[in-house]
Order: sequence, then structure tokens, then C-alpha cells
Amino acid sequence: MQRFLIKDVFASESLLIGTRLVVCGWARTIRLQGSGKFAFLELNDGSCFKSLQVFADPNTEGWQELVKNTHAHTSWRVTGKLVESPGSGQSVEVQAEGLQLLGSCSPDSYPLAKARLPLDFLRTIPHLRPRSNTYGAASRIRSTLAFSVHKYFQEHGFQYVHTPLITTSNCEGAGELFSVSTLMSKADTCYTPENRSWDYNQDFFKRPTFLTVSGQLQAEAYACALGNVYTFGPTFRAEESHTKRHLAEFWMIEPEMAFSNLQDVMENAEGLLKFVDIIEKPFVRLAYGDAIDLLQRSGKKFEMPAEWGNDLATEHEKYLCEEHFGGPVIVYDYPMDIKAFYMRLNDDDKTVAAMDILFPRCGEMVGGSQREERIDRLLGRIEELGLDGSSLEWYNDLRRFGGVPHAGYGLGFDRLVQFATGLENIRDVIPFPRATGHAMC
Amino acid sequence: MQRFLIKDVFASESLLIGTRLVVCGWARTIRLQGSGKFAFLELNDGSCFKSLQVFADPNTEGWQELVKNTHAHTSWRVTGKLVESPGSGQSVEVQAEGLQLLGSCSPDSYPLAKARLPLDFLRTIPHLRPRSNTYGAASRIRSTLAFSVHKYFQEHGFQYVHTPLITTSNCEGAGELFSVSTLMSKADTCYTPENRSWDYNQDFFKRPTFLTVSGQLQAEAYACALGNVYTFGPTFRAEESHTKRHLAEFWMIEPEMAFSNLQDVMENAEGLLKFVDIIEKPFVRLAYGDAIDLLQRSGKKFEMPAEWGNDLATEHEKYLCEEHFGGPVIVYDYPMDIKAFYMRLNDDDKTVAAMDILFPRCGEMVGGSQREERIDRLLGRIEELGLDGSSLEWYNDLRRFGGVPHAGYGLGFDRLVQFATGLENIRDVIPFPRATGHAMC
Repeated sequence: MQRFLIKDVFASESLLIGTRLVVCGWARTIRLQGSGKFAFLELNDGSCFKSLQVFADPNTEGWQELVKNTHAHTSWRVTGKLVESPGSGQSVEVQAEGLQLLGSCSPDSYPLAKARLPLDFLRTIPHLRPRSNTYGAASRIRSTLAFSVHKYFQEHGFQYVHTPLITTSNCEGAGELFSVSTLMSKADTCYTPENRSWDYNQDFFKRPTFLTVSGQLQAEAYACALGNVYTFGPTFRAEESHTKRHLAEFWMIEPEMAFSNLQDVMENAEGLLKFVDIIEKPFVRLAYGDAIDLLQRSGKKFEMPAEWGNDLATEHEKYLCEEHFGGPVIVYDYPMDIKAFYMRLNDDDKTVAAMDILFPRCGEMVGGSQREERIDRLLGRIEELGLDGSSLEWYNDLRRFGGVPHAGYGLGFDRLVQFATGLENIRDVIPFPRATGHAMC
Repeated sequence: MQRFLIKDVFASESLLIGTRLVVCGWARTIRLQGSGKFAFLELNDGSCFKSLQVFADPNTEGWQELVKNTHAHTSWRVTGKLVESPGSGQSVEVQAEGLQLLGSCSPDSYPLAKARLPLDFLRTIPHLRPRSNTYGAASRIRSTLAFSVHKYFQEHGFQYVHTPLITTSNCEGAGELFSVSTLMSKADTCYTPENRSWDYNQDFFKRPTFLTVSGQLQAEAYACALGNVYTFGPTFRAEESHTKRHLAEFWMIEPEMAFSNLQDVMENAEGLLKFVDIIEKPFVRLAYGDAIDLLQRSGKKFEMPAEWGNDLATEHEKYLCEEHFGGPVIVYDYPMDIKAFYMRLNDDDKTVAAMDILFPRCGEMVGGSQREERIDRLLGRIEELGLDGSSLEWYNDLRRFGGVPHAGYGLGFDRLVQFATGLENIRDVIPFPRATGHAMC
């Protein structure tokens, strides 16, 4: 007899009526009724939100086992026939011929025995919380969104590139770094306290290495060979942060497009966010200078006044997305001094071809730019900012040899899931969140 | 005028004949002919292997720029009309109306100026090598395979789970670990040489953390909630290795299936390898004991004689796949002592329900097992092996509360790409390889 996932039973229920089948899952509830003459078991196998009703009575093989194990979250293998349900609330049910208990579950010790447990308690049991309705649903949404992201890029001629997680430099200056090393357990021989130095010759890679903050620079190398590429993988920031919007380990999507400019990436990013079906509204596009004007004329009192040359604060982003426009806003052409070295200088010599997409509730969902493809300007910028030019030589090569205009962006996947699910805390959209002082399992 | 990717031009060439369009790309070659009266430019934009021929003559806008820049790997934007090609070797070509040089490329300094450069030289310029024919093709195959993997699982009712890269333990014992820490630069205050100890209270997570060697244990937690799940992400081994089959950072696919046994994962893995279209032959299935017998009776002299209780050596794997069966072989039911603690003990009390899929050329492509779901046996095994039971309490919980039979496997994605491309060295199938003493860009 064939085993069916419960979502597949529901998807083809009219075709399957009368079919004998196997379903497995966990009991959401088991109700003995009619003075113990029959029972209803609500079976959920995690494949969808909805549970499948199973009807059993003393003729069902395994009936005694059921009567002795009526706790929620016991696990079962059920054989039976799918029939139209005589009861209300469901169109089909399984008339059980056999029931087999796979695993018991004592409500006295099971942390999830009670219903409607608060999310901050569930956060302390990351290995069990996907069994709850909220996390189960969020996990399924996350998986669907991730696949949608891949589909979008693959259907639009992009190639998926696995940029490295272990990197040799922090050129972007995007934040604090985690070191990756095999020396920590060998500090007695590899660390010299007198001059506070490590003998990196004894480290695995024979040089200092870190967890990446972005795959962009390496993705650029591939865009300058393959055209349109994207990365989709974990990135890291060792920033002390206790907000609801930051993680130390999070998943980023970073497309990079050769022969493209800032307009192209704005369109690509908006296209992606429409494709994955989280929003329908067209995005407002607003130059940074106009955004500052608008904030200054809003008559709104901000804690940090909006001023040309400063980055937008959360309160400004909120005002733009939530109060003024009531939807996503693309702010572009930021002052060069608040943006990264690789962004393309505009003709005004003071702004760069950068854009951020601000979302209601989540703040910055996307950050992108056209990249500086002019080698002289790029080298000038690296020098001005006092960056380590030698470690960027490979990056500069991309401009020296058949360089092309190109542009890209980074999209925080966890924020996308946050927006799609409505979950407030970003720690609730990733299976095992990593944050300051917090790493379980 | 619309820009087309070159692969899209070829895909719809008969429909597009007569259309004015824009194509961009890098010149593979530029040939001035007819005493400089016309030119052929072979344009490649990385979207496919094949280049598009562009015809230009002195009436083409930008002709002078072309005449001055005939080096390979210069980059161009071309406007023109797609026409049937009068020449042989291609069915269509672009008659250029305009040519714009985007980036020059001096053959004197360009490391890729020469054709047919050896792979080991190309390995020293990982940022440029995707521009070569071999790496470009390997990159496109890698991207296609990765998407195929996602499609397989999504179409078979699996949910994609992002297990953490930063972990708190090495329970699997799968190999040496990289430490992840923010203390390295603070050794003068956080390290006490007298007792060789770190003050992990000052570390980012307030405890020792590592790069994961496998997402399996966490994937099990999700399988025990959502049913069928898979991970697809980077994993790490800090093992000194200079072979052609090992990387320090590599991508793994780890499906985990609830309500499933060893047979189920064998079928799922074989199904995956057929779905991604790298092999057609059915896989041979062979119990470990029978494999040992077969090797002993083969009459073949091995450096390391095959003996019950020892792991199969590379020479044994090669004999089975390449000489005896001439195709993939699934070896199952290994002695418990050479396998991990979480594998399910068979009724013979000496083997476990484990399987490896051995491939010609690549060796072990897949390793999987049914997991021990019986809490008493699992605890016994943890104690026998002297593992840190307290850090596994969360894992054991999965058996205490509604436990279910479940099974899963790990497939090394880079080895899959190696097999599909025929590239011998695994460092040639991943963009920026990380290995002992080797981390560039």
C-alpha cells in the first residue's frame, strides 16, 4: 500500500476517495468519543498546515494501543481507506484499518504540550519549535520563497554562483568580522604575547581568514565572465546587536549583472519581489536628495533631523514607507561619503549610483549599486579611503581587462521571510538563529 | 532597442531574423579581412558556450574604434540586425549598425591572453578563470545542477531548511574543526597562557563555536516536525589534505526523511542522481559483507587487504565501481564500529543501517543511514563512545517526544559536478576553492 504525504491526499482528495493508503504523522489531538466506542485522531505530517482526520473504532487493528496513548504529539502510522467525511469541518477522512504507535510523548515532560506558548519561550527550544503551528508555517513559507528566488533568477538567465564563505579580507567594511582559524587551541605555541601576534604560518590557510560579510566582490568576477549571476548563501556580521532585525548569520541573495546600470538593478529587484508574490504595489522611486527635502518639509519632528550627507535613520525610513507613501520606496543616488568604495560616482561628483529598497515594517530590504568600472576612479577611491589596495588587486583586474558596466544588489532573505510571514522578530524566521550571546544546538 | 542574451538569440534565432537588437559581450576573436574592408567579431556574453558572429564594415558606427581595438577579450556593445549568415559555421549573424567599445584589454598584461592555458595555471587566477572555455562551461553546469537539485526535492514534497553554519559542537566527529571567534585579536586580555584557557565569556556567542561539518543533526529536528526536508549549503573540514577530491569548504546536500528507512533513502538518492541526468545505469546494491567477500575472492592484489571490520579503501571502491560492476554501487549495512553514533543498529547487533554510494572516478558520492530512533540504544551508544551527552540532549529529545523512524543522507555537491563535468581536480569545479594553505580572493 502506498504512503501519501497529507498535502498530497488533500491535493487529490476527490481522485483518492475509496483508495486504501498509508499516512504517517503526529497526532494533533486524539478524541475518544461515544463512551470510548470510537476515536478521532487529527494527524499532521508537517507537509501542510492542515491535519487529516482519522476515524478508528474497536475493529481497527491497534485500537488498544490508541486507547492507551491518547496524548497529543504521539506519532502514528495509519493504514485505511480514504472516504468522504460524514462529519462537518472536513471533506475527507481516513477510516483506519490499522494503527501503529511509532513514538510516545509524555505531556508531563514535553515542553510543547501546552497550546499557544509564547514565541520567546519557543525560542529556547529551537529543535522542537518547528512542531508548533506558527513555526511550521513559517518554515514552509521560507522554503517556498527560497525556491521561488531560485526560479526567478534561473528563468531570467542568471547563473547561480557559490561564492566562498571563508574569505581573506574585509574590503567592504560592512561590519565586524568573525575569525576562522585552527590556532585557538594552539595559542601556547602560535601566539606571542610580547608583540601580540599570531603565527599564521601555522594556521590552516597560512594567513588570517574570516567569515564573509558579502559575496559581492567575488560575484562581480563571475558577472564579468558569465554575464548575469547570483549568489544565495549565508553571510555573517559579528556585530553586537539585540534588535529584532539583525542576525549574526543570515542568508543573502546577491545578483550581479554585467552590461547593466542602476536602473536595471532597480527593475530586477522590484521584479524579484513581485515574482515571489509578497507585494503587488509599484515601488516609489525617490532620489536621496528629494527624500531629504521631503523629510524636512514633512512637519514631522524626528529625533535625528534629516540632513543631506547623513544616512537615513530608521525613523526616516518608517516615515517614508509607512506614513508618507504607504509602501516600498527605492531611494537612490546617495552621497558618496556614506556609501562603499566600489559604488559608481555620478556626474555630480558627490553622489553615487546606489539604491536602497525600504519596506514597511522591515526597513532596508535591498541595498544595491552600479559598480565603479572606471579603473582610475576606483583606484582613486581606494586610496582616498586608505583601503588595502594590494588585497584588492584581483578586484581591480576586473576593470583592467575587458571591463564592463555592471551593477548588483544584496537582498536580506530573512527580512523577506519576515515581511511575508508578518513575524516581528527575525529570530523567528530562521531555524537556529545566531546572535550576540545566542547560539543553540 | 531590446538587449538580448546571446543564448536567447540562439534559442529563438529563426523568430528573430530581421529583428534589430542589442547584444553585449566580450570578443573571443576579432578578424579584420578583405584588406581591412570588413571585420568579424566573435561575441560571447557568458550566457552560453557558443559565440555570436558580428559583421562590421566601414559603414558601421564605431568602425574606427574597432580597427584600433582588435584584441581578444575587449568588451563591446553592438546594435544591429540579426540576419541569416552567408558564411558557413553559423546559421545567423549580426550585421552591426553600431559598435561601442566598453573596455579594452591589453594582451601584454592580460593573463588569459594565450589560448589553452593549463588548469593549474588558471587555478592561480580564480577571479579571471571563469572567462576561459573550460571554467565557463563548468560554471554553467554547476548552476544548472544546483537548480536541478532544488527542483527534485521541491517536486518530491521536501522542504528546504537553512541549518546553521556556526555550530556549538562537533558531535558527529566527522573531522577537524575551524573555530569561529572574535577573540583572536583580543588574545592579550582573553587568553591565559598559564592554564591555556580562553575566556569565552568575552567571545561573541559566550561559548566556543565552530564551522559546521554537517547540517544533519539539525535537519533531523526539522524532519521530525515537517516530514521531508533537505539542506543545501556549505560545510567545512579543517583537514590537511592535498588530494584532488577534498576541499576545506564544500557544498553538501542533506535530505532527511521522516517515516523512512534505509531502503527509502537509497531510492531517493538514486532518484536524485537520475533526475539531475548525470547517469542512466541502475545502481548495484551490495551488502558490506558481500562486498568484502567479493573483494577477497577477486584474485586482485590490494595494498590494503579487504577485511571485515575495516572501511573500504579507495582501491577497493575503484575495483568495485570501475572494474567489477562498471557503474555506481550502493554498499550498505556497515560494521557499527566504523560508522557514526547516530546510525541505527541492525538486528545482528554488529552492523548499522548505513549506506555509501560509490561512483567511478569520484569515489564516495553519498553517505547515508537510517537514524537510531530508539532512545535507549542511542543513549547507550553515546555512552559507549564517550561522547558529550549533555550537548546532545536536544538531539535525544527528538526521540523522547513523538519519535519516528527516519533516515537521510549527505551528497557532496562538488563531487557531483566533478562527475558531471569530468574535471579531475575538485578545485576546478568550485569558484574560489579553499584547501590547506590555499585561500585566494
